[in-house]
Amino acid sequence: MSSELIDFGEYIASYPDFPKPGILFRDISPLLASAAGMRHAIDQFAAQLSAFDIDLIAGIESRGFLFSTLLASRLNIGSMMMRKPGKLPGKLVRASYDLEYGTAELIIQQDAPVMGRRVLLIDDLLATGGTMIAAKSLLETCGAIVPACAVVIELAALGGRAGLDASLIALKTYDD
Amino acid sequence: MSSELIDFGEYIASYPDFPKPGILFRDISPLLASAAGMRHAIDQFAAQLSAFDIDLIAGIESRGFLFSTLLASRLNIGSMMMRKPGKLPGKLVRASYDLEYGTAELIIQQDAPVMGRRVLLIDDLLATGGTMIAAKSLLETCGAIVPACAVVIELAALGGRAGLDASLIALKTYDD
Repeated sequence: MSSELIDFGEYIASYPDFPKPGILFRDISPLLASAAGMRHAIDQFAAQLSAFDIDLIAGIESRGFLFSTLLASRLNIGSMMMRKPGKLPGKLVRASYDLEYGTAELIIQQDAPVMGRRVLLIDDLLATGGTMIAAKSLLETCGAIVPACAVVIELAALGGRAGLDASLIALKTYDD
Repeated sequence: MSSELIDFGEYIASYPDFPKPGILFRDISPLLASAAGMRHAIDQFAAQLSAFDIDLIAGIESRGFLFSTLLASRLNIGSMMMRKPGKLPGKLVRASYDLEYGTAELIIQQDAPVMGRRVLLIDDLLATGGTMIAAKSLLETCGAIVPACAVVIELAALGGRAGLDASLIALKTYDD
């Protein structure tokens, strides 16, 4: 069966008013629980990535880690972690970015093998794109090329795709 | 080449005095960066798990996620997340456990499909075992059987294995 025909919405649960009133939370737990769903997801990512000649995958903490190593294994390439403060040892490179209230930071190791590499960024979800844009900027600062980003879920109404300046692969797009 | 012959220590970096003085931090970043290393790791996990008839893998946030989906994919089974507070939507089940200072919590969704299942717990590292023991207890409270736990790195001097009451699969054991 071609993965083109899959509606990944059947593997995503929706929770109104989480983590706060007015937010409709999209949860990938049913996808993780389904061996078939995950196989279709990785098939779909791999098929759409074939033109990009990716040679490293950067997973964004925490849910990006659920897909970074799995897709890297499929593509027979390595992966790396992009983490929150206080988690990574060694010499680090940081990027700050704005949240609704305050700021956040993403961090990679200075010796992460990104220089001149074609890096795919992966996370579970794209909303406003703040985290993904900061992650891309941080990798580019370190000499990487970021031709594409991949997510399971895109919340299109929040406009993240427009700010990315890279191709976006999304398995399921919600317009509301 | 048989994965039996691999010393996974070649894929683990060591950082003295991180995250605080006196701690020797073991870092799996070189393993993640190596497609061959990750292939050997998953081969080794899968080979050692063949006797346990596992039908679900529970990954412990965050670095457990780097291995939970990948190993689940290899075994053609599903996976689930065990998370820190505030991350999972829906009805939840919690386990508190003691840290050196204060307490921490692990959380799963009440409708996680664990009842009567044979669940493998996976994380990157076993130290004192506090997190792994709490995770096992939480799954068992929800009706799961936990015949085995798997980690990349075991810090044997901290004695985590003795408290587990389950088989432990570790790719690399440090005695110091």
